Amino acid sequence: MTDFPFKITKTEGRARTGVLSTSRGDIRTPAFMPVGTAGTVKALYTSQVEEAGADILLGNTYHLMLRPGSDRVARLGGLHKFMRWDKPILTDSGGFQVWSLTGLRKMTEEGVSFKSHIDGSSHFLSPERSIEIQADHLGADISMQLDECTNFPATYEEARSSMEMSIRWGQRSRDAFGERETQNLFGIVQGSTFEDLRKQSAEQLREIEFNGYAIGGLAVGEGHDRMIEVISFTEPHLPKDRPRYLMGVGKPIDLVEAVAHGVDMFDCVLPTRSGRHGQAWTWDGPINLKNARFIEDDSPIDETSDCPASRDYSKAYLNHLFKAGEYLAPMLLSWHNTAFFQSLMSRIRLSIEAGEFESLRRELNGKWRKTVEK
Amino acid sequence: MTDFPFKITKTEGRARTGVLSTSRGDIRTPAFMPVGTAGTVKALYTSQVEEAGADILLGNTYHLMLRPGSDRVARLGGLHKFMRWDKPILTDSGGFQVWSLTGLRKMTEEGVSFKSHIDGSSHFLSPERSIEIQADHLGADISMQLDECTNFPATYEEARSSMEMSIRWGQRSRDAFGERETQNLFGIVQGSTFEDLRKQSAEQLREIEFNGYAIGGLAVGEGHDRMIEVISFTEPHLPKDRPRYLMGVGKPIDLVEAVAHGVDMFDCVLPTRSGRHGQAWTWDGPINLKNARFIEDDSPIDETSDCPASRDYSKAYLNHLFKAGEYLAPMLLSWHNTAFFQSLMSRIRLSIEAGEFESLRRELNGKWRKTVEK
Repeated sequence: MTDFPFKITKTEGRARTGVLSTSRGDIRTPAFMPVGTAGTVKALYTSQVEEAGADILLGNTYHLMLRPGSDRVARLGGLHKFMRWDKPILTDSGGFQVWSLTGLRKMTEEGVSFKSHIDGSSHFLSPERSIEIQADHLGADISMQLDECTNFPATYEEARSSMEMSIRWGQRSRDAFGERETQNLFGIVQGSTFEDLRKQSAEQLREIEFNGYAIGGLAVGEGHDRMIEVISFTEPHLPKDRPRYLMGVGKPIDLVEAVAHGVDMFDCVLPTRSGRHGQAWTWDGPINLKNARFIEDDSPIDETSDCPASRDYSKAYLNHLFKAGEYLAPMLLSWHNTAFFQSLMSRIRLSIEAGEFESLRRELNGKWRKTVEK
Repeated sequence: MTDFPFKITKTEGRARTGVLSTSRGDIRTPAFMPVGTAGTVKALYTSQVEEAGADILLGNTYHLMLRPGSDRVARLGGLHKFMRWDKPILTDSGGFQVWSLTGLRKMTEEGVSFKSHIDGSSHFLSPERSIEIQADHLGADISMQLDECTNFPATYEEARSSMEMSIRWGQRSRDAFGERETQNLFGIVQGSTFEDLRKQSAEQLREIEFNGYAIGGLAVGEGHDRMIEVISFTEPHLPKDRPRYLMGVGKPIDLVEAVAHGVDMFDCVLPTRSGRHGQAWTWDGPINLKNARFIEDDSPIDETSDCPASRDYSKAYLNHLFKAGEYLAPMLLSWHNTAFFQSLMSRIRLSIEAGEFESLRRELNGKWRKTVEK
């Protein structure tokens, strides 16, 4: 593998803080990656994403390969130039979105055939094709191996068989990726909720050698506590000197607990998606700005925030904008939530540096425990 | 009337450039006012509107009285504070929107009864009530008299009778407005396309005395040439030392021609509305970014512009964003168009100052004549 400096600067229990260096800049960990599904973090300018404190964002291979087409993005100079974001980008493999197309996809050892949700056209994704799209066309700083997201719930046999295919696809992804100067490749641990399968998956991926290791197949209905349990028994089998990435997670309480169990990276559409629906995440928990109790509330969401969306607009105004269906409503609340999630990661990093993470964790658990997914 | 300093700094033919001073700042004329219908210029931050060069924006009485309610805006500190815009605001009287509610409104000498398009609730707008909403509740720097927008086409008798009611409503608006330290009131000239009615309307409004005079009842289907003709025969009857405001206009070619006939102020939803539909206005005329010819066009809309939306994003990216239905598409194009309209006004003002307006007018007519409304 190419060199991928990951320096852990401080630990507290299993929580770690550090810096992941890439040719497009450093990523402070634990890191939350805003999701730019189709080449845009929905309703935000990239300058706002950067000012919010994000060091890296995520792009979706599935969406971009269908529209505008990854070859087109390549001809236009790559995803960074296309969407005007010059910091690091991690792309997913497309596997998860294709897996979600129940009834529209057919999986074989070779790869996945599927029909586009946009126009019904036929496509094929294999480990090799996914690497071509991510690393060659989009120009991702971090590519993900193609994997199969195991159904939940799954029997032990289903989970084992699926995990083993993901290992084989991991090896093929690794072979297709080869040696690259400035780009990186992460493997993905599967194995559903079975401890020995997660261990086996992690160990085999380590042998293949990746720049980082994701924990996949979670946040698919197993609930917060079960998710944290799986992370907890998977983590000891991951190399300490490589970043661990929990895919598609999550709520603020999930981030805090996963960091406590040794996770370094996250991505989730929650900040922007919930923002579009009127939900603002705050230190005291989520509130919904559409609620009638805010109709004449002259206070901002958070007057102490550095983010203009959080600090400068009254809840009454946001309530009005949502009722009137104005663009500015999702614009402001996606911005607020994106900044809030970055502030949370910043507080987490600083607390680990200061040896005060457990204290922060207790405080936030007290406020946010009621938001956990059952 | 209160003092309302309007200093004309230069004229060229009937075109004038100058400065309108208000307690919230100067308005450079000729001025184009972006429209913030429901307390927001759609898909824009007010900082973008200001940076684009706008000195004043327009708020809609009809929309704001229905939602969130003008009394609520008043309790929240007025429209400027509510929407975070501390430069001048002009509000319309609500008359035009109510007039557009064909079948849902009933007009009498006293005022207009109408049903809300939002929830069907009953409302009443009179000259006195409109002033209360605009000047007392919303806190407009410039309020407009309530008028009746004459149907088009209208017979002479219909136009005369309607114009006379607008005069009576103008007097009642003026009486209700009284004397105010820092707020201003504009009258509205009606009379359809009849020269003697326009003259009569202008003369009677001058007797009532307003801070400025709008030309109403245009851009309602009469076409560009007829509109300019009406402006041309109306303008000589308006006082030279007061601003003239052409309501609800218009396309770039309309602005240029109306300035040539002595108009100082404009408002229109065109920049933001057409931006939401993929249309970008440029010095070479309008283009539609949804068009397939832009699918791999790596160039920005205008690389010489100061506006990031015009300068920094490729047409290919904009094309993609519109196809994908992303928020960023209307955000960027509304921003570009708003900046373009302000650039046009700036070029117009500078050209009048330099005695080169006729030359600019010829140049722009050559490019934009094909865009005129027939």
